[in-house]
Amino acid sequence: MTALSPLAPASFPDMPVIDGVRLASHACGVRYAGRTDLLLVELDPGSRAAGVFTRSLTASAPVEWCRTAVATGRARLLVVNSGNANAFTGSVGIASVQRTVDKAAEIAGCAPTEIYVSSTGTIGVRLPDEKITSALADAYAKLTPGAWQDAAKAIMTTDTYPKGATRTAIIDGVTVRINGIAKGSGMIAPDMATMLSYVFTDADISAEALQALLKAGTDRSFNCITVDSDTSTSDTLLLFATAKAGNSPITDAADRRLADFKAKLFDLLLDLAHQVVKDGEGASKFVSIKVGGAASARAAHVIGMAIANSPLVKTAIAGEDANWGRVVMAVGKSGEKANRDKLSIRIGGVLVADQGEVVPGYDETPVAAHMKGQTIEIEVDVGVGRGKAQVWTCDLTHAYIDINGSYRT
Amino acid sequence: MTALSPLAPASFPDMPVIDGVRLASHACGVRYAGRTDLLLVELDPGSRAAGVFTRSLTASAPVEWCRTAVATGRARLLVVNSGNANAFTGSVGIASVQRTVDKAAEIAGCAPTEIYVSSTGTIGVRLPDEKITSALADAYAKLTPGAWQDAAKAIMTTDTYPKGATRTAIIDGVTVRINGIAKGSGMIAPDMATMLSYVFTDADISAEALQALLKAGTDRSFNCITVDSDTSTSDTLLLFATAKAGNSPITDAADRRLADFKAKLFDLLLDLAHQVVKDGEGASKFVSIKVGGAASARAAHVIGMAIANSPLVKTAIAGEDANWGRVVMAVGKSGEKANRDKLSIRIGGVLVADQGEVVPGYDETPVAAHMKGQTIEIEVDVGVGRGKAQVWTCDLTHAYIDINGSYRT
Repeated sequence: MTALSPLAPASFPDMPVIDGVRLASHACGVRYAGRTDLLLVELDPGSRAAGVFTRSLTASAPVEWCRTAVATGRARLLVVNSGNANAFTGSVGIASVQRTVDKAAEIAGCAPTEIYVSSTGTIGVRLPDEKITSALADAYAKLTPGAWQDAAKAIMTTDTYPKGATRTAIIDGVTVRINGIAKGSGMIAPDMATMLSYVFTDADISAEALQALLKAGTDRSFNCITVDSDTSTSDTLLLFATAKAGNSPITDAADRRLADFKAKLFDLLLDLAHQVVKDGEGASKFVSIKVGGAASARAAHVIGMAIANSPLVKTAIAGEDANWGRVVMAVGKSGEKANRDKLSIRIGGVLVADQGEVVPGYDETPVAAHMKGQTIEIEVDVGVGRGKAQVWTCDLTHAYIDINGSYRT
Repeated sequence: MTALSPLAPASFPDMPVIDGVRLASHACGVRYAGRTDLLLVELDPGSRAAGVFTRSLTASAPVEWCRTAVATGRARLLVVNSGNANAFTGSVGIASVQRTVDKAAEIAGCAPTEIYVSSTGTIGVRLPDEKITSALADAYAKLTPGAWQDAAKAIMTTDTYPKGATRTAIIDGVTVRINGIAKGSGMIAPDMATMLSYVFTDADISAEALQALLKAGTDRSFNCITVDSDTSTSDTLLLFATAKAGNSPITDAADRRLADFKAKLFDLLLDLAHQVVKDGEGASKFVSIKVGGAASARAAHVIGMAIANSPLVKTAIAGEDANWGRVVMAVGKSGEKANRDKLSIRIGGVLVADQGEVVPGYDETPVAAHMKGQTIEIEVDVGVGRGKAQVWTCDLTHAYIDINGSYRT
């Protein structure tokens, strides 16, 4: 096992019960020994679902299943296994999903399209789904409302800590709860959502409204992080609502009564996304990159991701080297408009370069001190417009290579 | 200094004199001590020039100068310094170029637009051009026709070996020579040409025809390699022709009499490009990636580069792990059309996956043996059309991080 990320939070949050949600984790031996690798989450009848998924053209069989299921907007059971992605497994993989779904629907007494399945781990290996289907009844018998940390642990692969977040929000005077869990680590450059993340609320919000909120929230959180520029075949983010909180039902994402819920949901998604970056494989620094002065928000995002994905920027950060010239290089390769002779760069709040060159009398001392910290802040203004964006990443260290040179063995 | 790349050629090629070309290298102390860091190449009056340059929007001052000079098609002197890129140095950097050009033109007795300058090294540091201008006369006095290996050494930065290649070609019955040198190492994902490379011939070919040949040759060589997906601010590839060989003058790149010259030039460019990859920072394996069955040649190239730039693919290769699932992932994230259920993958010539899943009874033994070699061959057919492409890269190792975590110190 890999050592705990130095960026890990002090503790797992204290997550409340969400009315209508029960969880169970189980060891079914898909890949790992001596740990749980199966998560079941049951949702009360009437629960709604929304989801965003990887844009990979080689998406896994479970992702394709979830896309179909989420179109119904209804949910009763989520089944997640870690250790095997059931991706690039052809018709055998599709049959594995179908058998898992059929068995789960039988046990839960619901329609197959109310079952959601996710798999994470190695690509291209047949999923031993009989290990899952034969364990489903035992796992189902263990369902309990409070097992959030165990749930977050059961979906881990090379993650070094379980990831959870919780918020409360007020909808029209009624308090509702939002809990979320996630897993990440490597192959993180979500083009829709990252790896696996599941968010639950007791709010009474329609599936259509949930979908709109989730899409908007993802664009500001999971779609703004990267560990290694590689996009998973399994990225799945699902949002479930049990409608048990007693708020007056809301069916429109633009409804003003959702303002607080939306803010809290977005905040929770960003919290989980940051936790994923902080557990990026080999991460020793958490890096925030703000881009301003771009031609548009989209251009600013592209520039930010070019910086965040640059191996030269990331290795310099790992080496605590304030090599801002590499930031210039990354801006230049992004393909988006930038005015080289107006470009400015701040590191740790200190103006390093301005008007296209290093500032007169540049003193690297405070910047070098900032580079030794765990959170690195880079700000770039590219001098052509008003577009801005913020993205987050981690550094590229020896541990990333250790982990990924031998993942399957 | 970094240890010699395990992929280094056995020796520097025996490069002939090219009539009308004289070279000199000199130690002027821009950055390095105890080694040469200045290259001068003089070309006889009447020499022509062609060039391709980085597409970076933060291109260096020397690149901007060369773009202007190459528009004249004429050349008399090339001045290259290593150790400092003179990039992102604002008006100070432009003035440095101007002073260097003016001094060189005075010494060589030619027009400033016949002078070509390149700088390579750290970005954002003022170029101490007085070290260059004050050394130019001494260097000029040392010009000699045969000093090719010394020339290749003088332009190295983190390169572990000098890179040279030579070919002869027949134009209309007359033998002509082509010599080329290059430097590479990191920040290699050329979007036009890579880092610095200079090619010289005695052939009598017009500047316009040279330019067309160079552009076409670059698209099949330097534009098909990547070390780390990062594009330099300084990428420069120049082709000079002294017209001394005595062949009947050729002014059209499509002239059939150029067939052999074109083939040999393209072969030389590919040779140099491969040498750059084999000296990629930290490289321990040379990786060839062939993509077929794509919607177009462009799409195949994009898919090939997605595989070649994937940190997960590159670390798996470094770890000698035949983790072909990561190749599937990289195809999926490329954004180009692929039929997941028709995809096939060969590694070292062995069919690993076909029709979207691992082949029945897959025996990893020969593939594992191939992964232990120095040259790794990956072939992917994405099953949608006839587009094909080939690209080359190296693996991602601990040494890359060592080199780039402390480059400036």
